[in-house]
Amino acid sequence: MKYSIGIDFGGTNIAVGLVDENYTVAAKSSLPTGKGQRTTDEMVLDMAVLCRKVCDLAGIDLAEVASIGIATPGTVNSAKGIVIDYPGMGLSNYPMSAKLSDALNGYDSQKIRIANDANAAALGEAMAGAAKGADTALMITLGTGVGGGIILGGKIYDGFNFSAAELGHTVIVKDGHPCACGRKGCFEQYASATALIRMTKEEMQRSPDSAMWQYSPDLAQVNGKTAFESAKLGDEAAKRVVELYIGYLACGVANMMNIFQPEILCIGGGICGQGDNLLKPLSEIVFKEQYAKTAPRKTKLVIATLGNDAGIVGAAAL
Amino acid sequence: MKYSIGIDFGGTNIAVGLVDENYTVAAKSSLPTGKGQRTTDEMVLDMAVLCRKVCDLAGIDLAEVASIGIATPGTVNSAKGIVIDYPGMGLSNYPMSAKLSDALNGYDSQKIRIANDANAAALGEAMAGAAKGADTALMITLGTGVGGGIILGGKIYDGFNFSAAELGHTVIVKDGHPCACGRKGCFEQYASATALIRMTKEEMQRSPDSAMWQYSPDLAQVNGKTAFESAKLGDEAAKRVVELYIGYLACGVANMMNIFQPEILCIGGGICGQGDNLLKPLSEIVFKEQYAKTAPRKTKLVIATLGNDAGIVGAAAL
Repeated sequence: MKYSIGIDFGGTNIAVGLVDENYTVAAKSSLPTGKGQRTTDEMVLDMAVLCRKVCDLAGIDLAEVASIGIATPGTVNSAKGIVIDYPGMGLSNYPMSAKLSDALNGYDSQKIRIANDANAAALGEAMAGAAKGADTALMITLGTGVGGGIILGGKIYDGFNFSAAELGHTVIVKDGHPCACGRKGCFEQYASATALIRMTKEEMQRSPDSAMWQYSPDLAQVNGKTAFESAKLGDEAAKRVVELYIGYLACGVANMMNIFQPEILCIGGGICGQGDNLLKPLSEIVFKEQYAKTAPRKTKLVIATLGNDAGIVGAAAL
Repeated sequence: MKYSIGIDFGGTNIAVGLVDENYTVAAKSSLPTGKGQRTTDEMVLDMAVLCRKVCDLAGIDLAEVASIGIATPGTVNSAKGIVIDYPGMGLSNYPMSAKLSDALNGYDSQKIRIANDANAAALGEAMAGAAKGADTALMITLGTGVGGGIILGGKIYDGFNFSAAELGHTVIVKDGHPCACGRKGCFEQYASATALIRMTKEEMQRSPDSAMWQYSPDLAQVNGKTAFESAKLGDEAAKRVVELYIGYLACGVANMMNIFQPEILCIGGGICGQGDNLLKPLSEIVFKEQYAKTAPRKTKLVIATLGNDAGIVGAAAL
């Protein structure tokens, strides 16, 4: 059996997995990232500790590991193993591959690859998850923001300057809700979990009798499930929120269909726990709106299956 | 010298060019398409006549022509040489390569390739025009509609079902202006020449003293130049139209930048005759809005240079 290691360098945890050639996670371990409390060099030392630990757990030697991949937020030069820019961590041109190579006592830095985390998650789904086997796959992750990943010919597409696939930062409502990126009306402002929570709160304030108040007795407790779960009970206000949210989501998804017509378009993130309650009405609008209605083959619109492991698996597949 | 033939199968004219290995059009000829007046088979016979004619004009034999490419509207299976769907001409699964091969007395149908016209134009610009040498290039053509073409690795990207790159049919104003595609608020409805003319007429009706009334004494005479030319004279109402139009155009262009971060993003179509009057204010907004502000390399935003020859050159390059 051939093994690779995938490292998910998250804002909260550093999660490391030993992944076999069938993309099964054979061993996994994590440590808190400690963002804001320590240097990135120290975090890389923990990556090294975790790499050794997952090897120990599986009873193999690090020297047997064919490659190591790191999924990190920010802009990344994969070929050079450098994090070009990760403002949240204050990183600029940080030679992460070389640093990890040192921390692992010279494990060949040529065998250590880096990718943006959203891109790595997309690759993970394309290699071993909901988009398995797809030559062209798109992944849209609905989380705090809206992340995007583009897989073409089985490889990450990151553009001329390693910054492509910011699918969440495409305006769908010109002059709409302000986005942290500086634009107004980004897809992210209408389709992220954050946006769903905002829409839920707004509707709750308009609807004091809504069942949503039972699910979340005060506004601070509202989460991505409040509207969906209350809608299942037949609450009209909650149904309005779900319909509004899915309408915006479908708008952005149909945009991506018209641009890419990928073999598989995969939706990820916590909201996907809603399964068919999300996918069915979403598909209905997307396939009604998308341009290639008469095309001989149709994109498959699916929900991601790897969950939190997508980053680890994708990193291991780099 | 090695030659190819490019055929631009337009709605008005069938234009054919003999193109040399430097992508120079050595000879060119055209005939009216006769849309609605005759069969597609008859049009293909004219393509054959024009192929022979451009060879005669250049004094070479058809047998010396290395390949023939056809740029046609609609959805196309390039590999099989079939027009899958071109509703405007009533075509469905039309074997265009085979038909042209027959009309040329058996010129090898394997050497006849087909592509969607917007895609072919993008390839033309990438091979010999404003995007020459770019590994990743995007083309956005501002005409009656908004056409799109995606060139990745020097090749046309047309997705899983040959229908990708409908960049004009991405919603930028949710629930906005109705589009012929069935959606509301498509980029095409705000950035096409048709949209510019609509905005110009609307502003003229609000501004009876505008200089635009001198340029176009009645609304039926309004064209894509009315606002731009009147704005140059300092007319305030015209300036508002230009600003409004460029704002929408920039919105869609910035979206494409955030998705693709291509090496070159090329804007084509008649409105580009405005040159820097269009490109300068457009660039200013796009580079302010796009996500990858700190990326080490910047996309070049340029105006197409091949004009009406883009389709011929792109088809010849297939």
